[in-house]
Amino acid sequence: MTTATDTIEREAGGEPPRTGIIDTDVHPVPRHVDEIRQYLPMPFRDMYHGERRAFFNNPVHGSRLDSVPPDGGPKGSDPDFLRKQLMEEYGVSHPILVSRTFCNIQPDPDYGSAIAAAFNEWLAAEWLEKANHDGAFKGSISINHHDPQRAVEEIEKWAGHPHMVQVTTDSGARFPFGQRFYHPIYEACQRHGLPLSIHPGTDGMGVNIQVSPGMPTHYIEWHCSMSLAFQSHLVSILTEGVFERFPGLRIALLEGGVAWLAPLMWRLDSYWKALRREIPWVRKPPSEYLRDHVRLASQPLERPAKDEHLLSILDALDAEHILMFSSDYPHWDFDSPRRAFPQLPDHLWQRIFVDNAGEFYGLAR
Amino acid sequence: MTTATDTIEREAGGEPPRTGIIDTDVHPVPRHVDEIRQYLPMPFRDMYHGERRAFFNNPVHGSRLDSVPPDGGPKGSDPDFLRKQLMEEYGVSHPILVSRTFCNIQPDPDYGSAIAAAFNEWLAAEWLEKANHDGAFKGSISINHHDPQRAVEEIEKWAGHPHMVQVTTDSGARFPFGQRFYHPIYEACQRHGLPLSIHPGTDGMGVNIQVSPGMPTHYIEWHCSMSLAFQSHLVSILTEGVFERFPGLRIALLEGGVAWLAPLMWRLDSYWKALRREIPWVRKPPSEYLRDHVRLASQPLERPAKDEHLLSILDALDAEHILMFSSDYPHWDFDSPRRAFPQLPDHLWQRIFVDNAGEFYGLAR
Repeated sequence: MTTATDTIEREAGGEPPRTGIIDTDVHPVPRHVDEIRQYLPMPFRDMYHGERRAFFNNPVHGSRLDSVPPDGGPKGSDPDFLRKQLMEEYGVSHPILVSRTFCNIQPDPDYGSAIAAAFNEWLAAEWLEKANHDGAFKGSISINHHDPQRAVEEIEKWAGHPHMVQVTTDSGARFPFGQRFYHPIYEACQRHGLPLSIHPGTDGMGVNIQVSPGMPTHYIEWHCSMSLAFQSHLVSILTEGVFERFPGLRIALLEGGVAWLAPLMWRLDSYWKALRREIPWVRKPPSEYLRDHVRLASQPLERPAKDEHLLSILDALDAEHILMFSSDYPHWDFDSPRRAFPQLPDHLWQRIFVDNAGEFYGLAR
Repeated sequence: MTTATDTIEREAGGEPPRTGIIDTDVHPVPRHVDEIRQYLPMPFRDMYHGERRAFFNNPVHGSRLDSVPPDGGPKGSDPDFLRKQLMEEYGVSHPILVSRTFCNIQPDPDYGSAIAAAFNEWLAAEWLEKANHDGAFKGSISINHHDPQRAVEEIEKWAGHPHMVQVTTDSGARFPFGQRFYHPIYEACQRHGLPLSIHPGTDGMGVNIQVSPGMPTHYIEWHCSMSLAFQSHLVSILTEGVFERFPGLRIALLEGGVAWLAPLMWRLDSYWKALRREIPWVRKPPSEYLRDHVRLASQPLERPAKDEHLLSILDALDAEHILMFSSDYPHWDFDSPRRAFPQLPDHLWQRIFVDNAGEFYGLAR
C-alpha cells in the first residue's frame, strides 16, 4: 500500500509551484451563443439557443465564482484568464480542453451532430489557434455518438489537427457503449490513434436514459449517481470484447469518480471466472484489458475521513498506471492540484499529475 | 485498518465448526408450482406458471449442483436437506429465508400482490411452521412494492407471526426507493418494528427499469451491474430524508455487493457538504443515517487479489457495525462461511457472522 512517507510538501508554503502538470478535464466556454451559432448551418442556426440540460441544475452555482474573466464574460470563457488562473497558479502545462456541447441530448441526429461540429470549429479557432502561441492548449473532437456515421466523418475531419488529442463524448446514452452500434466510432479512433474520452452530464436528458431505477428527484442525487453510467458503460465495453475487436483503442473516463473502479473490477473479474463461457471472446480477466486500454481522470476525487482508505484504494486500482489528474476547471467542484489529493510519494505524484497523461496523449514533458 | 493478526484458523483442519451463525440471505424454493398456485385466487391461479424473469438466465447454472435434495426435488426445496447442507455443515443457527417471488415484474398490481401473498402463505406453512420445530428458520414477508396499499395490508397480516422477522422486496423498480410513493410501506415497517430488506433480481424485468444506459447484452453484464440499482436506491433514500421521516425504519441491503458502499458514501457525504441547501431535511452527513439505519449482507463479497485491500475497505465502510454474513444458499454464487472472507480478527468475525444480524433481527444468541 502507498504510504505517506517520502512525500514532499505541496500545501501553501515555501515550495515553488509544481510545473508540467497535465490537466485532463478543462472546459472552455463560448463568450456568447453566437460564437457557436456562426458555425451552424440553417435551419440549426436559427434553432440553437445554447441548449443545455433543462433540469438538474446546480442549486448553488455551476462554476467557480472567481472564474469570471476580468472583462466580465462568462466563467471559463477567456483563454488568457484561464492561463492565469489554472496554468500559472498551479503549474499546469497542458489543459486538455473538453467542450460541453450537450449535443447528444437532441432527438435529431443531424442537429446533434451539427452542434458537435460547430463546437469543434469554435474550439479550433478560438482556443487551439488564436490563443495558443505556445501549443499549451490541447483539444478534444466532440462527436454526437447517436449518429456514428456522422461522428466518424467528424473524426476524419479533425484527426490531423496538430492540437486535437482525442475524441470526446458524453456518457448519456440510449444503450451501453460496448454495443455494436458504436463500433464504427471505435474503428475510427483506432485508425487515427486518437483516444476516446467519456464525460458525464447528459444522463437522463433528452433521448438519453437515466441510469437509475427511474428519474431521481434532486441535483445532488443525479450528480452523485453520475458514476453509475460509467460503471455500466465500462462493464459493457469489457464484456462485449471491444478491446479484442479494436486492440488499438484507448479510452479515458473523465469526471466519473475514481474509487468505485476497484470494487467494480473485483466484482467483474470474479464473475468472468465463473461465467466466461457466455463471453468467450473475453480471453483474460477484464481488469487486464482495463489496465492496457483505459485511463481514469481524477476529479471528483473521493476523500474519505482517513487518507489511508483512499491510498489503499488508489493502490488497488493501480493509480500509478491508470490515474490522470484533472481539475474540471472552471466548474464548481474544481479539484485543486494542491489540495485534491492527500500527500503522495514523489513517484506516484509524478505518474498521476504528469506521466500517465503525457504517455496517454503523447505529450512530451 | 483491520489486520490479519489475532485471527483463528477457520479453514479445514482441527477446529470444530463455528456455531451461532446467522445467514441473512437464504432462498427457500417451492417443490412444485402448485405449492404456490393453491394459495392464489382465481383468475391468478390459472394464470400463474411460476413466472420468473424471461431472459438474463445464468449461462452456467442457477443453483449449486449439489443442492438437489435426496428425493430429487428442485434445488433448495427440502428444509431438512437445507438444514444438513447449510446449518449442520457450517454452524448456521438461523437462516433468514427470502422467497424469490419475482412478483414485482408484473404490470398488474393485483396479480403481483397475489403472488407475494401466496408465497407468504406457502413460506409460513411449509418452512416456518411444519419444518421449524426449533424455530431456526426465520422468514421474510414478501410484498409487491408497486402496490403500496396492498403491501401495507400484507405487512399488517403477517407482522404478528412469531417467525416473520422482516419485510422484503426486490430492487427492480419504476422509480427510486426514496420517493414518496413508497412511504406507506416504510410507515408500516416502522410501526411494526420490522426491517425492510431489498434484494436484486427483477431489475429491467417486466415493468421495472434497467439501471444501465439501455438494456445490457449478457447475463454477466446484467449480474455485475445489479449493484447499481442498490447505489441508486440508497442515494435516493438518503437524499429524500426517509430516515428523518421514519426514524424507526431499518433497511437491509441483500446481495447487492459490499465494497462499493464506501466509495459511494465518500462521494455522497462530500456532495452533501456542498449542496445540502437543496435538501435541508438531511441534517447530518448521509453516512450517519446509513450507520444508524442500514445494514448490508455480505454475499457476493468481492475478493481482490490482495486481502489488505478488502480489509481496508471493510474498515472504511464500518463492517464491524453494518455488515451481516449471508451465503445466498442455494444459488450458484454461494458464499461459504468458511471461505468467503479472508481471515478476520475474532471480534470482527463475531460481529459480522453473529452479532450484527442478531441485533438487527432481534435474535438472541
